[in-house]
Amino acid sequence: MKELKDRILKDGKVLGNGILKVDGFVNHQVDPQLMDACGRELAKRFASVGATKILTAEISGIAPALTTALHLGLSVVYARKTKPITMPDQVYLTLAPSHTKGRMVELIVSPEYLSHGEKILIIDDFLASGATILGLARLAEASGAKVVGIGALIEKSFEGGRVALASLGVQIESLACIASLDDNKITFADLAV
Amino acid sequence: MKELKDRILKDGKVLGNGILKVDGFVNHQVDPQLMDACGRELAKRFASVGATKILTAEISGIAPALTTALHLGLSVVYARKTKPITMPDQVYLTLAPSHTKGRMVELIVSPEYLSHGEKILIIDDFLASGATILGLARLAEASGAKVVGIGALIEKSFEGGRVALASLGVQIESLACIASLDDNKITFADLAV
Repeated sequence: MKELKDRILKDGKVLGNGILKVDGFVNHQVDPQLMDACGRELAKRFASVGATKILTAEISGIAPALTTALHLGLSVVYARKTKPITMPDQVYLTLAPSHTKGRMVELIVSPEYLSHGEKILIIDDFLASGATILGLARLAEASGAKVVGIGALIEKSFEGGRVALASLGVQIESLACIASLDDNKITFADLAV
Repeated sequence: MKELKDRILKDGKVLGNGILKVDGFVNHQVDPQLMDACGRELAKRFASVGATKILTAEISGIAPALTTALHLGLSVVYARKTKPITMPDQVYLTLAPSHTKGRMVELIVSPEYLSHGEKILIIDDFLASGATILGLARLAEASGAKVVGIGALIEKSFEGGRVALASLGVQIESLACIASLDDNKITFADLAV
């Protein structure tokens, strides 16, 4: 998606160790118009998978999941990383390694909002190693729901997430696929921006 | 706002100790259409305050802040509660008590995204004691920005937040103002739903 790639080239910063800083428009400061355009595009790509609900992880998945949900007319559930007092004692919980925190984090969803027979579209800001998304898929499956698609704003293909997710057998879409951040340079997988 | 109040009466649950559970449509599962309608209404109410940016706190402030920002055509900054590795060493940081966590939490904003001369509209899901919003206002002021308005989806007027925020001298709006949760009953401040 040209609009997102252009913005990554303009405002993204390569911090080293495979880390791309996009907190000027995705995950600290958010550009709502860009996020809405991304949501519209993801909704278009997943229009025919029959999703009944969108699942994401707090915190930075919320914005793209919300705008995608707006365009698909679906509810969003965001997995919590700490259990709030409003959540029942029995929950779906799994662990996933956090790239930016350097430790395992919990992903928790209340059984009130994931149920058997639902068709889940997973949306997140990044598809990197795929570990967070695999965690979300485990939560969906634990509830008896079925994952029907996976969408991300930014894929770092050099971290192998698409391979890690292949066993789910669903459509995977990213709006900007980065093949390399070597030498502090952003190289997209398809060279045409 | 009738649509929000109706939904609170239909799906909100009073858990005792002044806690209203709205995680079926606000802060775990999110109803994007309702959130968009709330954002449109907040945007209308703050159309003339001259805001240049919206500030909120992760996690549950993100959805209403994003939809309000969409309708006002502004960027959103959400204060982080833990400092990600993508953030510079020098940050604006303040502490605020968390009602649902029962402890103090940090609110952190990068100086990259708050600056002198900006006019800040603070949006959050709840206005209860006002402590989180006061924390956001301190961050804005530390950067030299000026708070020009405060909006929340749900106000719990019995917790006194509006009084605590009065010294800021700005317009304060809530879309559903709850006067009491006594006897597990939701009573709105204006009795007409």
